[in-house]
Amino acid sequence: MSHRKLVGRSAYGLPAVILLAVATSGHTFAASSQQQGQNAPLVIESEGSFAFAGKVETDATGQSRHCDHGYADFSLPVGARKVPIVMWHSTSVKTWTSDPPFLGGHQNFQDIFLRRKWPVYIIDLPRQGRANYGCFALDYVSNWPQVGRDQRTFAGAVAWRLGTWVPPGPPTFFNPSQFPDDPTGALLDQTLRARYPDNEQLPDAFPLEADSVSKLLEQIGASILFTHSGSGYPGWLTAIKSPKVLSVVSFEPGYLWPEGEVPPGQTRVVPLADFLKLTKIPIEIIIGDRYPAASLAIAKAFVDTVNKHGGNAKLIYLPDLGMFGNSHIMMMEKNNVQVADVVSQFLNENGLDKH
Amino acid sequence: MSHRKLVGRSAYGLPAVILLAVATSGHTFAASSQQQGQNAPLVIESEGSFAFAGKVETDATGQSRHCDHGYADFSLPVGARKVPIVMWHSTSVKTWTSDPPFLGGHQNFQDIFLRRKWPVYIIDLPRQGRANYGCFALDYVSNWPQVGRDQRTFAGAVAWRLGTWVPPGPPTFFNPSQFPDDPTGALLDQTLRARYPDNEQLPDAFPLEADSVSKLLEQIGASILFTHSGSGYPGWLTAIKSPKVLSVVSFEPGYLWPEGEVPPGQTRVVPLADFLKLTKIPIEIIIGDRYPAASLAIAKAFVDTVNKHGGNAKLIYLPDLGMFGNSHIMMMEKNNVQVADVVSQFLNENGLDKH
Repeated sequence: MSHRKLVGRSAYGLPAVILLAVATSGHTFAASSQQQGQNAPLVIESEGSFAFAGKVETDATGQSRHCDHGYADFSLPVGARKVPIVMWHSTSVKTWTSDPPFLGGHQNFQDIFLRRKWPVYIIDLPRQGRANYGCFALDYVSNWPQVGRDQRTFAGAVAWRLGTWVPPGPPTFFNPSQFPDDPTGALLDQTLRARYPDNEQLPDAFPLEADSVSKLLEQIGASILFTHSGSGYPGWLTAIKSPKVLSVVSFEPGYLWPEGEVPPGQTRVVPLADFLKLTKIPIEIIIGDRYPAASLAIAKAFVDTVNKHGGNAKLIYLPDLGMFGNSHIMMMEKNNVQVADVVSQFLNENGLDKH
Repeated sequence: MSHRKLVGRSAYGLPAVILLAVATSGHTFAASSQQQGQNAPLVIESEGSFAFAGKVETDATGQSRHCDHGYADFSLPVGARKVPIVMWHSTSVKTWTSDPPFLGGHQNFQDIFLRRKWPVYIIDLPRQGRANYGCFALDYVSNWPQVGRDQRTFAGAVAWRLGTWVPPGPPTFFNPSQFPDDPTGALLDQTLRARYPDNEQLPDAFPLEADSVSKLLEQIGASILFTHSGSGYPGWLTAIKSPKVLSVVSFEPGYLWPEGEVPPGQTRVVPLADFLKLTKIPIEIIIGDRYPAASLAIAKAFVDTVNKHGGNAKLIYLPDLGMFGNSHIMMMEKNNVQVADVVSQFLNENGLDKH
């Protein structure tokens, strides 16, 4: 029986080999401890992709087109927890996905949370990425990647805060930095390509996104939203619109405010009755190192406003936990397993991680 | 020892439980027979995504942008075969990926070949899908989804040949049809959304694609290309350009021809010396049911031309194998496991499926 020591015990006290055999007949089971490990194989029950929401437009003769849908990748691990996580990027799904072995194999949130047995959905919103078959001709001409985008991404205080970059000098990372070790510069090259042309120039972009994700949750069931940066604001709109948003974990998002309680400089306002819906769900905001003080104050004001109205919002400033050197893309950085631990603890405290 | 009977034996005669433990220390192993089954869990060593190829454009001051890269999803199964498969779509990666459980869970080629232990890469080419951060402002305005696209996709003889659709009447599938059972119409809705705005209107599109995939193969190693329809032609260009294309399996592609041997109506021509590179690799062309006779004659002419010059090209017309009712998207249809069997046999016959 020495092999039992190698694989440990499942939650049911059965050796994993028996449970794998059960899984092949269509049942799920609690994973062995080794399968939950950082380098254990991913054991996936099903995966794939689908379009969600979207319109069908028809002319007078009945000729039609399907457009303005979103696109979701799904991965459902064997032995999954009940509530899925929907990962909603700001610039590209690459912020959630792992690196290939030839680039060091650094693991990102899709796989970290899959290994922790969460069903994971990664989405492109309408008119973005794999969902760029829109009903409108986006003005990509004036919204195209411009020279200088690299420097603004790398160094901007309101961008990714990786370091300083003043051409013709090279990019210089902050010290300390949690950006993964990158001796050849290949990972920085990847990071600067982790971007799509933006879809936000049309006035209906944010309501369209909130409506689309609400429809997605009608299909996949009540879920936790992970939002980031530019997806923060439409994420709050979705939580207001859909009772199927059970929680929002947001990484350095933008905010919205109830009428009459808007901090100076903030422009996104909703009726108090809408804002109060955000007080019904657990919210966690995660902020990295070197976040501008004024922005940190706004984050604190948002959490205070939610809680003042009876909510359950929590602000995590990573340096307060002894985590230094994180940029705006902390879900892609060296210590992202520890960042994920912070999130996992929050989900556990709020009873959202049940099998 | 009864559990050993449940899991079968690996190729090394060890129970799978031992091999799983080995895998956690970083080694790979041959899968147990049950893991290769159609409904067994996918056991993935690593997965994720990355940008490939691409340009960096810099102005006189040193300000820069990264653009015109491709985007690849990778999935490396535990116990993988040596040579990866690169799946290169024509309209959307959805043609390769499986459906979610709430849409019936139909499995497509990504998972069928992963379960058969192939490393699988699925790519978006520059200026498409998740790689639409191009160096040029694509003219999406004139290349936008037009009303009537649905009918042309569904019914066109040079499109997907799913059936007939004359508005205001409903779409009617051919009989027989291999399109998956779709009582609610949800799968047809998915299929009509499996499309991006095209990237082919700029004159450098095809050479750019061939160059990009050649660079991808420099990173991931010599590979088999699966191409489909519109990706057929740039796929041949890639096989001419890169010695790392070990084989091409192409589903109803377009073709190119050596100078002086161009059939009437065909326009894509390369020097004979280039064309001869296609004679150095095994090629399989797969054609579905109801393919127009003139198009089938062109496919046969291509295979004959390759073979006349000493090549190893094979034409599979699925009805000749007793497989009726397949459309242009046979990799997504009910009998796609049988279509995959045809491909697997070809790869085996050519010694490409070694572990």
